[in-house]
Amino acid sequence: MAQQHPDPTDPTAGVVTGDALAGYLRTQATEFLRALRLHRETGGGGSNGVEESVDAARALRRSARRISGSLHTFRPLLDTTWSEEIRPELAWLSGTLALEHAYEARLERLLVALHRLSGSTAVPAQAVGAAVGGHPSPGASPERGNLTVGAAKAGALLDRQLTLARTRAHSTALQALGSSRFHAVADKVALLASEVPLTPTAATTDLHPLASAAEERLTDAIAALPLVTAGHPYNAEALVHGLSPDPSPHPQDGPWHQVRLLLRLHRYAREVLHGTEAPVDLRLLTAGQALNRHRDASEAAAAAAQAARTPRIAPATAYALGVLHADQRHEVEAARFAFEQCWQKQTVAAP
Amino acid sequence: MAQQHPDPTDPTAGVVTGDALAGYLRTQATEFLRALRLHRETGGGGSNGVEESVDAARALRRSARRISGSLHTFRPLLDTTWSEEIRPELAWLSGTLALEHAYEARLERLLVALHRLSGSTAVPAQAVGAAVGGHPSPGASPERGNLTVGAAKAGALLDRQLTLARTRAHSTALQALGSSRFHAVADKVALLASEVPLTPTAATTDLHPLASAAEERLTDAIAALPLVTAGHPYNAEALVHGLSPDPSPHPQDGPWHQVRLLLRLHRYAREVLHGTEAPVDLRLLTAGQALNRHRDASEAAAAAAQAARTPRIAPATAYALGVLHADQRHEVEAARFAFEQCWQKQTVAAP
Repeated sequence: MAQQHPDPTDPTAGVVTGDALAGYLRTQATEFLRALRLHRETGGGGSNGVEESVDAARALRRSARRISGSLHTFRPLLDTTWSEEIRPELAWLSGTLALEHAYEARLERLLVALHRLSGSTAVPAQAVGAAVGGHPSPGASPERGNLTVGAAKAGALLDRQLTLARTRAHSTALQALGSSRFHAVADKVALLASEVPLTPTAATTDLHPLASAAEERLTDAIAALPLVTAGHPYNAEALVHGLSPDPSPHPQDGPWHQVRLLLRLHRYAREVLHGTEAPVDLRLLTAGQALNRHRDASEAAAAAAQAARTPRIAPATAYALGVLHADQRHEVEAARFAFEQCWQKQTVAAP
Repeated sequence: MAQQHPDPTDPTAGVVTGDALAGYLRTQATEFLRALRLHRETGGGGSNGVEESVDAARALRRSARRISGSLHTFRPLLDTTWSEEIRPELAWLSGTLALEHAYEARLERLLVALHRLSGSTAVPAQAVGAAVGGHPSPGASPERGNLTVGAAKAGALLDRQLTLARTRAHSTALQALGSSRFHAVADKVALLASEVPLTPTAATTDLHPLASAAEERLTDAIAALPLVTAGHPYNAEALVHGLSPDPSPHPQDGPWHQVRLLLRLHRYAREVLHGTEAPVDLRLLTAGQALNRHRDASEAAAAAAQAARTPRIAPATAYALGVLHADQRHEVEAARFAFEQCWQKQTVAAP
């Protein structure tokens, strides 16, 4: 992928055509197959196997998202039937593979927050699990000593529930990777690595208009966000409905999640145009991190609220989960503020 | 009190002497006696009596605080024995009178927060009590409909506990106002209204050095506050120790409460120098409001935590109280941010 034209918004920039798209898709497909091979080799899991297997699953998801995203953005340049067949399958695959890691990260986030709320500092992630997971070890006792009964019980409850969910997600992912459905996707990606089904005119079509359309969808969605409110610190918006009887009380998070996905599509489109080796736009990186934090805190808050609905828990446990829920909803608000700061500052600073 | 010199920091300003202090103390003593008369007339409580009685108690506290504060700041200019006798008595009086109003305001703050957290908007304070207090009326049902069982039970529990505390504080205040201890204070204040026990040299002593010392104590205390942290929105400091096993987990609030008192002393010293009719410094007003909000939110958070320790409450109630506690601790953090913004902005803006 020779990339002479680093700025897609530069009107004097030359043409990057469907050929570059084909090259990008072939690269991602090759990455996918490499990750798949690695996953099969490590999936059985020896002593180092677990970590390598996690890396492989992450790499699989990474390339699956990029293939799927590019098919979406550059849809008109690709064979429609093929594209419409493979996209939902890639989404299913990356969604299934993402769950295990998501549950693990959610548990870690919540346990670290519980320790912060209990006033203990700099708790190593591993010690957290040991300290609150109901298996105290002599080394973990200083951390445990700082937890109230409520915080310790809340931690143990979350540990139980999210570890169970993670284990189930792990089994589901293993089943998925052994399924005929998966083999059909893998075969399609293997074909993609050698031959990309472009439309007859795609090879000479400029990619910029479709990439710009993806960027416009992003900027339109950002313009519709309540950024003025988000830019006022401590606006207390994220916790409104925190005690609402509505079982899904946070529709306010939806538009932010949507912007997170559109930002990702925009980033992938930039990779197609500029090459994967081009330096990452710092603004997009920071904005993306804020939106990831928003999503993670939103889901962690929901997990704390969900755990509080467990029958027959002690009031002290429920109280700790309430504090934890509110804490994570404020993380949601903080992430919106961080996004607003990074986005607005650079919009103003741009020439 | 003729006031030719509006700026106590202006080195060219002329001298304001102990005469001005005597005038100020006489005025405040007269206010105290007027408020006391009004309180006695309305204390029995007819239909309008309650509100007037509340106003009278507020006016009593207001002048008691000003007399006590001025005696502290300008201590060297006043008869020591007299001053050391009357100050703790005035502090006891204004403390006793303040409690009833404090419990009432705390309950209102917590009920309004519960409604906000339940997603209902613009709830009139009176409707709140009716909606969550366990006495639903047809008019209050829309608000009640938006409360979960947990939020409604938490509201009812807080209503019960803080109303009981308020009732007790009311009785204590009435007893105090009928006590011989109170009559001794009132007699002393009555004497003060006609004759202020200045030291022999006070009448010709410049008040500025003592007023400046009060201001320095304020600026020193502010300099010791963690303002850099407070100026970073969403620093999550206020909720650290939110689940600490320590029964008084918020020593971090102490220095802010102290600044609130020093700010008040500084404001009273300015009143002595500039007269009570001089316009209030907007910065001091805003800073004082932020510190009041800090104190109120800190105490409301403690009341929610305290209510959660009630034996045999339902988990849903405890969960709602946990969310409420965290919400008020974030109000604490927001108040610190507001203080930092108002204080730093004007420090920079000052010539």
